[in-house]
Amino acid sequence: MTKTKTLNDLFHETLKDIYFAEKKIHVALPKMAKAAQSEELSAAFEKHLHETEGQIQRLEQVFSEIEAKPQGKTCDAIMGILEEGQEIIKDFKGSPALDAGLLAAAQAVEHYEMARYGTLITWAAELGLKNVVTLLNETLDEEKKTDATLTKLAKSSINQQAHPQAAE
Amino acid sequence: MTKTKTLNDLFHETLKDIYFAEKKIHVALPKMAKAAQSEELSAAFEKHLHETEGQIQRLEQVFSEIEAKPQGKTCDAIMGILEEGQEIIKDFKGSPALDAGLLAAAQAVEHYEMARYGTLITWAAELGLKNVVTLLNETLDEEKKTDATLTKLAKSSINQQAHPQAAE
Repeated sequence: MTKTKTLNDLFHETLKDIYFAEKKIHVALPKMAKAAQSEELSAAFEKHLHETEGQIQRLEQVFSEIEAKPQGKTCDAIMGILEEGQEIIKDFKGSPALDAGLLAAAQAVEHYEMARYGTLITWAAELGLKNVVTLLNETLDEEKKTDATLTKLAKSSINQQAHPQAAE
Repeated sequence: MTKTKTLNDLFHETLKDIYFAEKKIHVALPKMAKAAQSEELSAAFEKHLHETEGQIQRLEQVFSEIEAKPQGKTCDAIMGILEEGQEIIKDFKGSPALDAGLLAAAQAVEHYEMARYGTLITWAAELGLKNVVTLLNETLDEEKKTDATLTKLAKSSINQQAHPQAAE
């Protein structure tokens, strides 16, 4: 009962955290795609929805690699981050700034995921789990690309729609 | 009452969000510094505590630039992220993996801040708030440096302490 916890335990707990998070993101993305005013942003959310499905499957492979059952664990962080996205949708409905707010919410999600995957990869390397490192690196690359796409969208026309007088 | 919200409103709301977040981080950091087993990690948290004080002052300057009163707004995201850090401290007390867990929690915080400051800088540029861009860029640089320091610590001795058998 008082067995000292190890890095293996920490890895497993954090894996359950991000598994829960990815499933919640999978539920949130269609709502964000629907709310988005710009077709480009909506398409970016749809694309990431499909990627998220692959990322969930990859996490299931990681559970299998460490001989554990795929299982989630309530992740307060992602709940809070997604809650803020929901508030944006509610508060900025009909506003030209809605898409800028959705982009910000999505980037907060991406950054949370990048932090978690970065950490898991460091630990997996430390634990000698080579296949796990490979799997999680694929996901981390996708998250980075998604974040870069969102940054590009944020800097382009979307913010100008939100504040047209600034677009001289 | 039904005035359409603009990018100015979104900027102001998000500024209140990060102001609340920085104040919560300022309360959490001494606890994390106290919990850390490695002196190096504890010192990194102490250093970031002092930076956070400067970042709060910078945010107060930003409020002044937009002629608004410094005011926080409950940020569910940071509450969730910090709650996870508290759980790590509780669950991994006395474990050699505690510092690895604290590092992961701190990096989640840094990534949230980097996402928020990145967004605010994009909007401030869009809104033509040059001084605000300068102020927030100073903070973003500090957050990036802190994240890099944490990554370095995570990849060095700390994880080896957490899993000594992996350090052949």
